[in-house]
Parts: sequence; structure tokens; C-alpha cells
Amino acid sequence: MTRTVIESKTKTAIIGFDQPFCVIGERINPTGRKKLAAELEMGDFSTVEADAIAQVAAGATVLDINSGAVFSNKMAEDPRYADNNFVEPGLMRDLVTRVQAIVDVPLCIDSSVPGALEAGLEAAQGRPLLNSVTGEEERLEIVLPLVKKYNVPVVAISNDDTGISEDPEVRFAVAKKIVERAADYGIPAHDIVVDPLVMPIGAMATAGQQVFALVRRLREELGVNTTCGASNISFGLPNRHGINNAFLPMAITAGMTSAIMNPVALPIGPKKIAEKKAAIEAAGIILPADMDDETFVQLFGMGSTRSRPGKEMEAIRAANMLTNNDPHGGAWIAFNKAPGEDTATGGRRGGRRRRA
Amino acid sequence: MTRTVIESKTKTAIIGFDQPFCVIGERINPTGRKKLAAELEMGDFSTVEADAIAQVAAGATVLDINSGAVFSNKMAEDPRYADNNFVEPGLMRDLVTRVQAIVDVPLCIDSSVPGALEAGLEAAQGRPLLNSVTGEEERLEIVLPLVKKYNVPVVAISNDDTGISEDPEVRFAVAKKIVERAADYGIPAHDIVVDPLVMPIGAMATAGQQVFALVRRLREELGVNTTCGASNISFGLPNRHGINNAFLPMAITAGMTSAIMNPVALPIGPKKIAEKKAAIEAAGIILPADMDDETFVQLFGMGSTRSRPGKEMEAIRAANMLTNNDPHGGAWIAFNKAPGEDTATGGRRGGRRRRA
Repeated sequence: MTRTVIESKTKTAIIGFDQPFCVIGERINPTGRKKLAAELEMGDFSTVEADAIAQVAAGATVLDINSGAVFSNKMAEDPRYADNNFVEPGLMRDLVTRVQAIVDVPLCIDSSVPGALEAGLEAAQGRPLLNSVTGEEERLEIVLPLVKKYNVPVVAISNDDTGISEDPEVRFAVAKKIVERAADYGIPAHDIVVDPLVMPIGAMATAGQQVFALVRRLREELGVNTTCGASNISFGLPNRHGINNAFLPMAITAGMTSAIMNPVALPIGPKKIAEKKAAIEAAGIILPADMDDETFVQLFGMGSTRSRPGKEMEAIRAANMLTNNDPHGGAWIAFNKAPGEDTATGGRRGGRRRRA
Repeated sequence: MTRTVIESKTKTAIIGFDQPFCVIGERINPTGRKKLAAELEMGDFSTVEADAIAQVAAGATVLDINSGAVFSNKMAEDPRYADNNFVEPGLMRDLVTRVQAIVDVPLCIDSSVPGALEAGLEAAQGRPLLNSVTGEEERLEIVLPLVKKYNVPVVAISNDDTGISEDPEVRFAVAKKIVERAADYGIPAHDIVVDPLVMPIGAMATAGQQVFALVRRLREELGVNTTCGASNISFGLPNRHGINNAFLPMAITAGMTSAIMNPVALPIGPKKIAEKKAAIEAAGIILPADMDDETFVQLFGMGSTRSRPGKEMEAIRAANMLTNNDPHGGAWIAFNKAPGEDTATGGRRGGRRRRA
């Protein structure tokens, strides 16, 4: 059985064919999160810490730490900040240190900057996952020695110097090349977690079939674990969660063993609350003046002002049970238990997830 | 490509590997629905007609018609009503006639009583699906001649005279026997839709894996379409919809091509509305006296007083797209379109399905 072992100071996460699906939380990533990048530039790690706690609470067993921030203000003062090789190593070290101080879960060190990968490997306790190597020659030569030196597992993305192929045969061949090249360094296949690359289904109608077929081949022919950026599949389409919720169980059926994804349903914020209040006032409903926001959003079926597991986590936990990786349904029953509810009432539906 | 063709007077439903998943609506079934059985006993078909319309509106492309009613009152007057061979043929004829008069979709004639099967075959326009033959000798000898005589496809359930085996090898062997026996009658494999039998995952931890492996074998080795009573998988567990919503995309990935299931989210009824009103009054909210129920349940995020597609239909439509059976996502986009919303806004989420 292929098992990829990832460790924090005291916790172990295993990616494997006979394991519950491994959820790698993707939220700690300033790429495309301008507000977060600005906070980090000012040395403010409060969002990072909140994201770490929320993702673990929602069910992530590994946290991805991406240091790809652009520090626009500092760049204006000091041109060295325009170079990510300058910015990211220090930032990665800080991110790893801060996250480790607040949650004890294995980390995934994620950067395109070699110096940041090494800084993360140095700062991380235990045995982190490295993210990532590709089939590009330069990348193979830089990253595989780090994987060997630190004895860590690595995410292998199946693109190479020619880019991302739309042909799954080519993507399989790239993955195979990476596994073989890793073997030359003495890195075993069970320490390679291949990302076969998920294309948006809206742009490529065969994207789902490609991934499912690739995952099965990667598992059967190369014996490797797999991961993906799960939400890519629904890019550009309406009701993305509806697509993601079906995609994940399907990928799991095909043999996918982990995903880099957001496990958290974002809390209902002040703007949504204000919109709803305006709508209900227009309908002639009078609210008590002192009603707190959490009571309000719950009564109006909006969810919660607190973060909680996203619907994708429900789909994954059900899929774990259906692949016999939650053999007595214990995790499923606990997940669906309303606070204070007894698990003995197995025949009734959990109170906290009502039919929509 | 295996294609099972089912027809009404003017409509065709195709079950096939290269087709959207075929949803066979299960609601028209008095077994275990005492209120419906009592209505039918009094010659009241209003619920049947409403169920027919709601299921088609929700996306069922075939309707199952089950005549398994127990007429307790008539039985007290006339002992012949204790015999389903007496009750069901006439009831099946009436059900088929009533449903055909109100919706034009192919039917699935469902009874354990041979006379009811034949009555349904006679009454049905087009080419209905027959439900069902099993591997039991007596059943094979009664049903296969009907299948041949009426030239219809048939559901083949993989149990035999020894009962339902927990061993998937045995269930595969039973399915194979039925396909071979059908061939002796000149019935082609593409007119057999095998139900490999879904066990409750709460009782058998390997139930999911069994079905997925069986479906794949049935497709690859026997070239047959498959169906199942989908909701069986979640029997006895909390949040059954959460399990069903993951199970269906997983089964589709394995190659399942249809299911007998409820496509309709039951409307919010007076009891739930009264409970909610009590809760919000207790919270100090004052409602306008003239607020209608539909406005109320929508404002409070309870769903609708009208029936609408269940969450399983969302999972199936997403799975259709992910198996390239909705190649431009047209069905997905239409399904997620809020009434009056333009489909051109493909990049935003559909208004009618908000994140829970």
C-alpha cells in the first residue's frame, strides 16, 4: 500500500489508498488575496492565524503555506522587493513559525522560489510536504536535491518545459519522468504525490474524464498518491460548489487520495446581513433592536457568522465512508451530530444539516 | 455503445454509457405510503398525478409505476382483495392510464405480480421498461416471455432462489445468468438493465466498494446498463441526503447509468412552517399578518412550499457534465439559472442555489 507520511511536531497525516481523503487547506496563500498580502507586508499575521485555526477546525489535516506575496509598498521604497527571491524566504520562515505556534498539523511548503522552499524546510518541524516539483529540467535539478536532503515527500505537477499539455498521455509521461528522475536520487514513489492537473470543465468538456483516467493510471501503473487543485474544475461556471461537491467524490472513486482546497465555508459577513435586513424590512417584518448577528443569520437560514466546514467537506466525509475509509461511519456520525445531540439516534438525520 | 431505449407515446429516454444519467422517478409507489394506498383504494389519483408532474419537472425522464397497494378496507368486505394478484392488475392499468394522460414520459412497469406486469405492458403506450426479473427460476420463466412478447427492456435484479448474496461475485454470477437466459429468448444484452443491489453502508462497510466494482464489471464484461435503488445506501444513517449526494456521482464514475430514486425535494409543509413561526415569535420577531407561506419560507431560508429538484439532482447534473454528457454545460447552466436570469453571466454563481 502506498503511503505518504507527513508530520508536524507531534501529528502525522498519511496520504494513502487505504486512508481517509487528505484535505490540504489552501487558504494561507497571499497570491490573489491583496488584503492578506498587505497585512503580511505590515507584519500582521492575524488572518493567517485565523485561517490556520478555521481550516483545521473544518477538517484539514495538512495546511499549505504559500509565500507568493507581492509587497507593493516596500517595493516602492526598495527595488529589491520586486524580486520574489528576496521577499519569499523570510516570509516563508515567518509564516511557518507563526502557523506552527498556533496549530500542530503537518505543513505543505509551497513556493516557486527555491530559497523559500529551503527556508520553509528549515523552519518546519517534523516532515513537511514540499510543493512542488514539475517536469521542467531546471525545477527537477533544484527541487529533487532538496527533497533528498530533507527526506520529505513532494508534490509533482505534470507539466514540463513545453507547458501544460491538453493530452493526458503527455501529462502521464511527465509524471512518469518525474517519478523516474526522483528514483535516480533515491526518492521512493511513495514520497511523490502527483498532481495530474485539473482543467476547467467549462473550457474542456473532457476535463473530468481525463482526470479520472489519469488518477487511475497513476495509481495502478506508478503506485503514487495524487492531489489536485480541486476547485479548478468549476472555474467560470455558475454554482461552483455544486460542481466541486460532485467532482471530489468522483475523483475519490477514481483513486485520488488528496486535494489542495478550501475546507471552510466562509462566514456570513456584515454586507450580506445588511442586504438581508433590508429585504426583510421591505417585507414588513419587524426585528427586535437588540438581536445579535449570529441569532439573526441562523433564524433566517443564512448559515453562520462563524466559519464552519464547507459542503465539500460533507461530500468528502461521505465519500470516505463509501470507500470503506470510515468503516463504522463514526466520523460521518460525529460530523453530522448537532452540538449536544446523542450519536445513538443513528436512524434520524443530523440536526445541523437540514435538507436545502 | 450499449443503449437501452425506453419510449412513451412521443418521448424517448435512452439509458447508455454516452448519455446523461437516467433518473427513474420512484414516487408513484403505494408500498409503505399508507396515505397514498388509501387514496388509491378510494379511486383518488390526485397524489399520483401531482407526483408525476413534480418528478418530471424535477428532471426524471422515466417514471416508475408500482402497483403494490394493500386495500385494507376493501379486504374487510371482500376477501379477494387480500390477494395482490387480484388487486394489482386493475390498479396498474389505472395508474398507467392516469399518468400517461397527464405527462408524456416513458414508464417503468413495476410489480411483483405477473398479471400486473402484463396489464401495465398492455396499457402503456410506446416501449416501457419492465421492473423486474430476478435470477429466481420461476421469475425468469414468467417474466422473460413477457419481455420477448412485448419487445421491451427489463430491470434484472441480481438475487436468485438463494436470496440476496452478500458476496459480489455471486451477485455478478446471477446477473450473468439472467443475461444468458435472456439471450436464449433472443433478448439482447442492451435490453437488460442490471440492478446489482445496493446494501446499506451502515450495515456493510464495503457496500460502496462492492457496487462500484460490480458496476464496472457489469459494464465491461457483460456490456449492460445498470440501475439501483440509490437511497438504500444511506439507510439508518444521519443526513441521508449527504450520503446519497456523494454516492450518486461515485456510482456514475464507476459506470452506473440510471437510478430509481426520488428527484423531488419535498415541499415545506404547514407543520414545519408552524414550528418556525413559533421559534421566530419566541425570538421577538413580528411578522406582518398577511404574509403568505411561500414568501415566509423563502425569507427564512427554508426552501419552498412548492416541490423542486432535490440536491441529488444537482449532484447528478454536475456528474453528467464531469463525464462529458453535458458537453457545453448547457444543462448545468440552465439548471442553475434563477428565473429571469440571463445565461450569459456564466462567470457568476446561479442565484437560486446559494451556498448553504
